[in-house]
Amino acid sequence: MGVNADSVLLTDLYQLTMLQAYHDQDMNDTAVFEFFARKLPEGRNFLVAAGLAQLVDYLEALRFDADELAWLAQCGRFSKAFVDSLANLRFTGDVQAMPEGTLFFPDEPILRIVAPLREAQLVETRIVNLLQFQTLISSKAARVRLAAPGRRLIDFGLRRAHGAEAGLLSARASFLAGFDGTSNVLAGVRWNIPLAGTMAHSFVLAHDSEVAAFEHFARSYPAACTLLIDTYDTEAAARAIVPLAHRLAREGIVIQAVRLDSGDLGEHARRVREILDAGGLPDIAIFASGNLDEYAVSALVAAGAPIGGFGVGTRMNTSADHPYLDCAYKMQEYRGIARRKHSEGKTTWPGRKQVFRRFDSAGLMAGDALTLEGNTQPGLPLLEPVMAAGRRLAPAPSLAEIRERLVAQLAGLSPAQRALTPAPPYSVEVCPALHDLARQVDQRRVAPVRPVVNGAGCG
Amino acid sequence: MGVNADSVLLTDLYQLTMLQAYHDQDMNDTAVFEFFARKLPEGRNFLVAAGLAQLVDYLEALRFDADELAWLAQCGRFSKAFVDSLANLRFTGDVQAMPEGTLFFPDEPILRIVAPLREAQLVETRIVNLLQFQTLISSKAARVRLAAPGRRLIDFGLRRAHGAEAGLLSARASFLAGFDGTSNVLAGVRWNIPLAGTMAHSFVLAHDSEVAAFEHFARSYPAACTLLIDTYDTEAAARAIVPLAHRLAREGIVIQAVRLDSGDLGEHARRVREILDAGGLPDIAIFASGNLDEYAVSALVAAGAPIGGFGVGTRMNTSADHPYLDCAYKMQEYRGIARRKHSEGKTTWPGRKQVFRRFDSAGLMAGDALTLEGNTQPGLPLLEPVMAAGRRLAPAPSLAEIRERLVAQLAGLSPAQRALTPAPPYSVEVCPALHDLARQVDQRRVAPVRPVVNGAGCG
Repeated sequence: MGVNADSVLLTDLYQLTMLQAYHDQDMNDTAVFEFFARKLPEGRNFLVAAGLAQLVDYLEALRFDADELAWLAQCGRFSKAFVDSLANLRFTGDVQAMPEGTLFFPDEPILRIVAPLREAQLVETRIVNLLQFQTLISSKAARVRLAAPGRRLIDFGLRRAHGAEAGLLSARASFLAGFDGTSNVLAGVRWNIPLAGTMAHSFVLAHDSEVAAFEHFARSYPAACTLLIDTYDTEAAARAIVPLAHRLAREGIVIQAVRLDSGDLGEHARRVREILDAGGLPDIAIFASGNLDEYAVSALVAAGAPIGGFGVGTRMNTSADHPYLDCAYKMQEYRGIARRKHSEGKTTWPGRKQVFRRFDSAGLMAGDALTLEGNTQPGLPLLEPVMAAGRRLAPAPSLAEIRERLVAQLAGLSPAQRALTPAPPYSVEVCPALHDLARQVDQRRVAPVRPVVNGAGCG
Repeated sequence: MGVNADSVLLTDLYQLTMLQAYHDQDMNDTAVFEFFARKLPEGRNFLVAAGLAQLVDYLEALRFDADELAWLAQCGRFSKAFVDSLANLRFTGDVQAMPEGTLFFPDEPILRIVAPLREAQLVETRIVNLLQFQTLISSKAARVRLAAPGRRLIDFGLRRAHGAEAGLLSARASFLAGFDGTSNVLAGVRWNIPLAGTMAHSFVLAHDSEVAAFEHFARSYPAACTLLIDTYDTEAAARAIVPLAHRLAREGIVIQAVRLDSGDLGEHARRVREILDAGGLPDIAIFASGNLDEYAVSALVAAGAPIGGFGVGTRMNTSADHPYLDCAYKMQEYRGIARRKHSEGKTTWPGRKQVFRRFDSAGLMAGDALTLEGNTQPGLPLLEPVMAAGRRLAPAPSLAEIRERLVAQLAGLSPAQRALTPAPPYSVEVCPALHDLARQVDQRRVAPVRPVVNGAGCG
């Protein structure tokens, strides 16, 4: 059997054991699950929804192939009748979601699945796996983008991303958050993300002379090359580039940039800038990398470091300060009855929810209302239909469209919320309709879902 | 073109641009690269080598297929001659490595690649991607294992792992570090790792009564089921289980365990244990999950919490306190000449290295010697031949063998080094032969590799 990420067996065992129990009890009525974050990572002001495109691909392709069914049949846990029932299982449900690139806040669902119980349950693990990771990285990358206005930002993180898919998806997630490109070739192939790269220390080390390495690389890329200059002595390398660049220029060969990768990047950048400027090379840009994140980039920008672009890797692709989100995919309704759990510290809002976002006259975001579907509130509803009866309703938006959406969304944040420092929490009001339903659920433990009176005021 | 983790294009662009420059300069002599960690994550005492099996698979399968070559030919960066040269590229090098499950320390190479320059360079990105992640997770999981002697440990982390491959490889990495199983079905299929799982809150929520949910689940798994009891009120659920368990027992149905997933796990465990014991159910075990890591598990064990097993997820599978390793794959030699870079804070030891480990009379690890290949020191050499001329020398060891190796290695640590708290650093001495070579390299920037006098004392 192939072991690839697309396998329906990329799930937790309990999804399958619960499905068998549902099968044994003939339970398969309509269930409603929603995905949301319980809270923001400490010190953060917003999250960026991402990963929906891969989620829709997954749901559309969901099926057990013959090898997978055979494995289940022989593993000793499942009855023949149950395994047979899986052969025709497809995802036939409806999906509502916030489009990728939407800003969101705690308790706001960014995804709702309405589907027969077994389908809605089976997909939990991969849904969380896909949504939490890209949301995590887009949310981090958006902060790097905000910290470096006008600078070129390149994803360099494949090598220390957590495996292959993390490397691929973080290239996508950082690009949709406004990065300019990635070093990850396969991500470029897959999503047409612009590729960028420089050279490694090993290229310099493989030559007996640093300047010979520079010349060889420039000759292979006469229109544009970036030379890594910190292998031995950064400023000495910059000084060596001055005569080399002039000599190569006479042959029409252009050195576009130099890269710094160690030491005090701001101080080296200033010295290298002076050397290049004094050498008549003001057009050679300085690119920096090495342990960067939004804080390091912001500090360099604030200090006026003459750095035109940054390669940001490990700390972004692992979301190193917050490597996971406190998020969940939870049942909100089954058989027309709203539900919620009461586990300590993890109580959730029941029912099918919608989020309405208000804007002030200047176009800034003025507060969200979390309410039940059908309880229309002022502002824009954020969850939109994405799939119906198991099929997507429209082609996925392009990454360019998602980027534009996020730029517009970030422009709607107040300056305090856009800053790297923690701002007072953005207002998310829970509407009376939702409070009422929660009370009903708590009183009876389960509560029938009744039509919500439209227009009941929130907050 | 397929976009899967096995693609040779899962690499950084600069690997390909450097390869073209090497092609243009006709450079392809033998290069030596080594992978090592620069330092331990703060507060840690050791690292566990892992990921070698996937690395060997990758190297053996390395090739550009027709679609990949076609993509490279049209992307505008590469010459036809260079792309043609890639068609027959295979990995033809030699590999030495520490076996998976070996403990290692800063500056000690766990992998050496000796291969034609282009091959050795091309593979850098994926090698780091594979070795750092599994090493990261095995090192974290080994601490969880040490913190919970005799307790059952199950990997629950797929959903918040960073994508599919991270979920799969962290199941493998935690199992080799001594976990008892995983919830990740595909990992069970792939590596024959024992599968385990319980039930989700949604299973309880889908029923109008919690005890009906318990009974349904138990009837589907009459020999062994674990019931999740914190959906509403943990102790109330435990009390409800007492009559249910006795009633089901008369039909031969056994409730094996209950799971706690929220609140003060130690306090709930004590109360639930009392309820079950008083109810004549001493054989129902208590299993706990929720935000666990080595510290939380250790505290519960130290407090005598009556918990027989732990589901450990997010914090282990993301190595949440240290989500990346400061590690590198660096050129150590080219054309028979030792090399090292001098980038600030990132200077490396040049040449082909070996690590010798000494043991005291009690069998405890007594110190490592880092030296050059051929400079035999007392103790066991840790790097062993794994591949020659591009082919593996022996089948990969089984996960069972790797687990045994690690158990033996951990038994060789002093109690202080085995503890979760930081111990004085384990001794890694750099031998005079290596100091001498480094001096030569620094004096000339490049230094010819000369035979090392065997037996020169270290330390």
